[in-house]
Amino acid sequence: MKHPLHTLRAGLIGTGFIGPVHIEALKRLGVQVTAVCGSTASARACADKWGIPEVYGDYDYKAMYASPNVDVVHITSPNKAHVEQSLDALAAGKHVVCEKPLGMTSKETAKVVASAAKKGAPVFSVNYVCRFIPAILQMRAMVARGDLGRIIHVQGHFFQDWLLKETDYNWRVLASEGGKLRAIGDIGTHWIDAVSFILGAKADRIFAHMETFHKTRRRPKGEVQTFAKIDPKTMVPYKVDTEDFGSVLLRFGKAGHGFADGVHANASVSQVSAGWKCSMAIGVYGTEASARWTLDDANTIVVGRRDEPNQILQRGTPGFSEDIAGFTDYPGGHAEGFNDAHKMQYRAVYQHIASGRKTEPLFATAADGHHEVRLCEAVLESSRKKTWVSI
Amino acid sequence: MKHPLHTLRAGLIGTGFIGPVHIEALKRLGVQVTAVCGSTASARACADKWGIPEVYGDYDYKAMYASPNVDVVHITSPNKAHVEQSLDALAAGKHVVCEKPLGMTSKETAKVVASAAKKGAPVFSVNYVCRFIPAILQMRAMVARGDLGRIIHVQGHFFQDWLLKETDYNWRVLASEGGKLRAIGDIGTHWIDAVSFILGAKADRIFAHMETFHKTRRRPKGEVQTFAKIDPKTMVPYKVDTEDFGSVLLRFGKAGHGFADGVHANASVSQVSAGWKCSMAIGVYGTEASARWTLDDANTIVVGRRDEPNQILQRGTPGFSEDIAGFTDYPGGHAEGFNDAHKMQYRAVYQHIASGRKTEPLFATAADGHHEVRLCEAVLESSRKKTWVSI
Amino acid sequence: MKHPLHTLRAGLIGTGFIGPVHIEALKRLGVQVTAVCGSTASARACADKWGIPEVYGDYDYKAMYASPNVDVVHITSPNKAHVEQSLDALAAGKHVVCEKPLGMTSKETAKVVASAAKKGAPVFSVNYVCRFIPAILQMRAMVARGDLGRIIHVQGHFFQDWLLKETDYNWRVLASEGGKLRAIGDIGTHWIDAVSFILGAKADRIFAHMETFHKTRRRPKGEVQTFAKIDPKTMVPYKVDTEDFGSVLLRFGKAGHGFADGVHANASVSQVSAGWKCSMAIGVYGTEASARWTLDDANTIVVGRRDEPNQILQRGTPGFSEDIAGFTDYPGGHAEGFNDAHKMQYRAVYQHIASGRKTEPLFATAADGHHEVRLCEAVLESSRKKTWVSI
Amino acid sequence: MKHPLHTLRAGLIGTGFIGPVHIEALKRLGVQVTAVCGSTASARACADKWGIPEVYGDYDYKAMYASPNVDVVHITSPNKAHVEQSLDALAAGKHVVCEKPLGMTSKETAKVVASAAKKGAPVFSVNYVCRFIPAILQMRAMVARGDLGRIIHVQGHFFQDWLLKETDYNWRVLASEGGKLRAIGDIGTHWIDAVSFILGAKADRIFAHMETFHKTRRRPKGEVQTFAKIDPKTMVPYKVDTEDFGSVLLRFGKAGHGFADGVHANASVSQVSAGWKCSMAIGVYGTEASARWTLDDANTIVVGRRDEPNQILQRGTPGFSEDIAGFTDYPGGHAEGFNDAHKMQYRAVYQHIASGRKTEPLFATAADGHHEVRLCEAVLESSRKKTWVSI
Repeated sequence: MKHPLHTLRAGLIGTGFIGPVHIEALKRLGVQVTAVCGSTASARACADKWGIPEVYGDYDYKAMYASPNVDVVHITSPNKAHVEQSLDALAAGKHVVCEKPLGMTSKETAKVVASAAKKGAPVFSVNYVCRFIPAILQMRAMVARGDLGRIIHVQGHFFQDWLLKETDYNWRVLASEGGKLRAIGDIGTHWIDAVSFILGAKADRIFAHMETFHKTRRRPKGEVQTFAKIDPKTMVPYKVDTEDFGSVLLRFGKAGHGFADGVHANASVSQVSAGWKCSMAIGVYGTEASARWTLDDANTIVVGRRDEPNQILQRGTPGFSEDIAGFTDYPGGHAEGFNDAHKMQYRAVYQHIASGRKTEPLFATAADGHHEVRLCEAVLESSRKKTWVSI
Repeated sequence: MKHPLHTLRAGLIGTGFIGPVHIEALKRLGVQVTAVCGSTASARACADKWGIPEVYGDYDYKAMYASPNVDVVHITSPNKAHVEQSLDALAAGKHVVCEKPLGMTSKETAKVVASAAKKGAPVFSVNYVCRFIPAILQMRAMVARGDLGRIIHVQGHFFQDWLLKETDYNWRVLASEGGKLRAIGDIGTHWIDAVSFILGAKADRIFAHMETFHKTRRRPKGEVQTFAKIDPKTMVPYKVDTEDFGSVLLRFGKAGHGFADGVHANASVSQVSAGWKCSMAIGVYGTEASARWTLDDANTIVVGRRDEPNQILQRGTPGFSEDIAGFTDYPGGHAEGFNDAHKMQYRAVYQHIASGRKTEPLFATAADGHHEVRLCEAVLESSRKKTWVSI
Repeated sequence: MKHPLHTLRAGLIGTGFIGPVHIEALKRLGVQVTAVCGSTASARACADKWGIPEVYGDYDYKAMYASPNVDVVHITSPNKAHVEQSLDALAAGKHVVCEKPLGMTSKETAKVVASAAKKGAPVFSVNYVCRFIPAILQMRAMVARGDLGRIIHVQGHFFQDWLLKETDYNWRVLASEGGKLRAIGDIGTHWIDAVSFILGAKADRIFAHMETFHKTRRRPKGEVQTFAKIDPKTMVPYKVDTEDFGSVLLRFGKAGHGFADGVHANASVSQVSAGWKCSMAIGVYGTEASARWTLDDANTIVVGRRDEPNQILQRGTPGFSEDIAGFTDYPGGHAEGFNDAHKMQYRAVYQHIASGRKTEPLFATAADGHHEVRLCEAVLESSRKKTWVSI
Repeated sequence: MKHPLHTLRAGLIGTGFIGPVHIEALKRLGVQVTAVCGSTASARACADKWGIPEVYGDYDYKAMYASPNVDVVHITSPNKAHVEQSLDALAAGKHVVCEKPLGMTSKETAKVVASAAKKGAPVFSVNYVCRFIPAILQMRAMVARGDLGRIIHVQGHFFQDWLLKETDYNWRVLASEGGKLRAIGDIGTHWIDAVSFILGAKADRIFAHMETFHKTRRRPKGEVQTFAKIDPKTMVPYKVDTEDFGSVLLRFGKAGHGFADGVHANASVSQVSAGWKCSMAIGVYGTEASARWTLDDANTIVVGRRDEPNQILQRGTPGFSEDIAGFTDYPGGHAEGFNDAHKMQYRAVYQHIASGRKTEPLFATAADGHHEVRLCEAVLESSRKKTWVSI
């Protein structure tokens, strides 16, 4: 008898930086990757590398959706294509793993929520992958069990430097391509979603301050890959309509377990922080203990206590593993990294599908993805009005 | 010929936690500590321990001010006594080192500014000691030289846990004793002053959010020392009128050197962060490089760069020492700590006095102390109005 | 045209802890995993999970060697089976990836060296996977380029705690199963091979001290998996004939590049170090700079300099990537971990095969594996004689 | 009534780098520093700076010994003067704090032991200051209480880089001035003494390997201060007769408490480790837990446990302070550093004196100092003979 996950077959749209990350994670799980869609050349190359039988060039994702050999669609195309491809996938009866953000506006993402909520609709997930870093799952379990007591406040940041220079370019810099928010939309939402997941509560009020340090940037004429290097000589100036960095204060609503009601959070987000490639930090401070975690040292959590020594929780060792059984594979000291988190996320989604929705949907749903988009709109409104805004 | 600092004579008011820190630092510098004032018993004990010749009991600081053997007065009494004791000291022709905050309201601290600004007035300093941690001096030098480029934003926090429990008590919890702000007033101002010192600019706009998590606390009936332990059985409930934690967003004004104009800063401040005794962190992010520092690892700075490896600057080694010559005494690897920062601060003040004000007043002046009090008032106003407030 | 690595087909012997690690890494590379051999039940389960077409139960690896659909054999069986399975694989014309150690005695591993050295023999590699942690590759490049100057000494450790308690059991504890050396054989050789790889030189003299702290241990009656938990009640005492920990001093011979001749190294190795699951540290100290690395923070190297600030090299950022192009896939800040190192190792082996041996064999060869076994024998001899021993 | 420590009066020989460290630490304790001896100019300058009443120029320490105003003599002169000055001090009835090493040979240090052991002899201490870093005291308490179980092994290092370059010079490089061992004698003995103190046992067997990487160095013609910079142009070559680095394996004898009998230790020691100014690390591994500490982060200990999370012990917080009451002054988060350890050491010595030897002599005695010299001789013998040597 085949392993349940091996019976499921994935088709992928998009072959840029993140697409292959999905493919490798799926292959690790034993999921069959049966189709790939993208530009004709890159889809072909991708198929040749991983032995993917069906190739859909010219970005013809609808043809792929018609394939009887695809059960789950992974959407890793640019942001502005997400909603349409999601709606079409649902309509075609395909389960969906959609890269974040779910869409460009809450108006359009609401449609995905509605479609995914229909009776008999396929499973829909949005790729807020930080949820499946075992330490994040662990902090969520600790909060839910009351290990940290009542949560008082949360603080942290997400800092990158890949857009530090005025000559740094990516389609995400353009509001028309990536959405009106950039730093907060691209990485800030990872932080907010992860904190929301940890607390078991959703943000309901926001105060934000955003700044565009480089009001004019220079860009290459053609299109470029994420993280690719560009020759400055070919560049033309353009006005920047997305923020370089921002501060976001949030109030979270009620959590079902009663340990995290009305929590205040403070996040700094920046894509112009020299030297810090992916510096993400979350600190959750409760009446009994605190939990601090950084992405730089993703396999551990530091638990702070007032009247006892602080503790270092290590993934794969006692105090850690029982809460996250099934979402970490290697013993302590054998680091899990970026690809492993993707693997765990897809395991959650595919187990949910394979079980007939019997498992808890730990992954971000369409509603979660929609909430993040609404939240970004509130950030924009707050930053403009300079007041707190309710979501 | 005596060393200039040895010719200066200090008198101290207050013998609690911080008083002896001053005494030890002064003794290390060769300054003569000639008088001490406090409760009769503790002033006597203090004098006996360190061989201080003149003892003023019954908190009779005015008698000490009359002594011809005191050149500099160190005010380490509770906050609400600072202004009166400062004004009297200036009137008595004594130089002053006053513990922060300078006073309870900007109305009263303005008087100290006026008095200290008079022609021929003694030297006046406020004890924002973080300035004299060598790494802070070093970051200031780096900003002023343009090593970090133009500063884009600043982020950090100051977290403690000594008031985590509802039974934790100290006079600072009472607005009437410590001032209307507590977490932000007590430790947040250290962060803000240090950042202001690093940038060479003053905060001119503030947005703040504050919360009192323990709206009711319990306290002992009598008076207690900072950091002392208390028996819960003797406690009575009281309503708390100061904040447990807060988020402060700041905009700094122009810096003379042109490298830090209009900088946004985000600080989280808390006295209810389990496990973190004095977790202070500052990150300064510029167009050329960033500088990150934490009090936990106070002898180093991590410099972040986009296109080159990050660097670890160590106090007492190349790239560090030239900028702070005179404010660090021990070679690299021989850690300087809490007392050393006090030593360096008093060295700055006493050298300024001994030189006839020829040295740069790196220490916080009465104007700086006054600014911090105004800033606290703006924090309070912003938190109530939920809007940005100008200072 | 298929990607060269996708044209290669792997067959795996052994389905314990490390076997699936191989499978996942191979799948990430696009290599076809076509066969699996082990106990009938576990080989079947493994095949079902990852869709492996050919299954060889009853540990019938010879049947698998007869398959025309297997180009490369991965040997992940217990240590004592390695040599026979290797020799048979070579005889069957299969390329080999053999888990370390290559064998139980240098007498038998010499046969593998001889067989692999024959004209037209398949490619043979031993799985010293630490070589393919990008930071290790990077340190090797730095030494070879002379970035660290002439190497003076090397120091470090490899500490685990999974055999701390006298009730901890694994077949590796028995000399008859795992070899006469345990801590040093199992993890110490990882350290020594990695250092040898970094220096580009082989150890030629050894002084060792070893101790068996638990002279008697208790074990379960049946067989158990690595890292599995055991019920103490079922246990029987037995005399331990392998070491719990040891100190190894080494002298390395000449390196071709002239920057690392006659280097002294000091390694501590222990499997009874409470709290440390896989604490591996290497420091390489040269006349111009030093390089420190730990497995806990595997994506960075700290470079020490006498007269300039120390540096933090991050994988995937400038100063790191050019030297290891092709052996890291994710940008800085996106951590690579345990599985990624395996992936990079197999990439090196399979590229070597696919290119017709045109690429540099960075992986450990049969000769390297044989050297490690001889080195273990020298460790044993030195520890008994209490003198330096030449290899 | 004067504080007992204030009634004691110190006289100091030597005004180089370490002399002022003693003076400042003594002043912090309230001890009266009444006399200083050195070159006429520097003794005068020293007296002027700290208001020391009696000055003995021309290194006329015997005149100082004749002063009725000196109770305790601090010997901070070069190594080769220690024994004679110690013997004379004891003969003059002065208590002694002697910088390490106690002397150049065990033959001469045996005389000090004999003299200090006489009935009615003054108190004698050797300045192994690492004992009084609170974390070291704490680890000692943990071992003695059995918190770590039976100790299995100890590992660590002490690395500096101030003698990395062939042009780096200090009198310690010359065997005739500093003793036949340099790296191990100067800093290695700090490590060994600290470990011995932690274990409560003395090393009884040694195996050592030492190397002089720079067999020829160049030096300035005149004399120079420790840590001073020198102009390379004035330098002349000389043959080096002391080691640059070494590895030392030790077996410790029995501890009174039964938790540390026959412990193996491995220490790497180097003064040519680029970038590391004072990198000292000690790991103590027991059957119940391990304790790791580094001088870079001197205020904390990491406790490792097999089946529970690791812990971070912070000085000045629960689990730390009770064991070391009286040897730390500042609360958690307020770092104690280099000078504070000296302060605590002298507090221990002076309290011992003031109490009439009633307190436990935690400081290193003449016998301890003598043992370290014998141990250095064993290191030399072992390195030459390449065998284990008993002490």
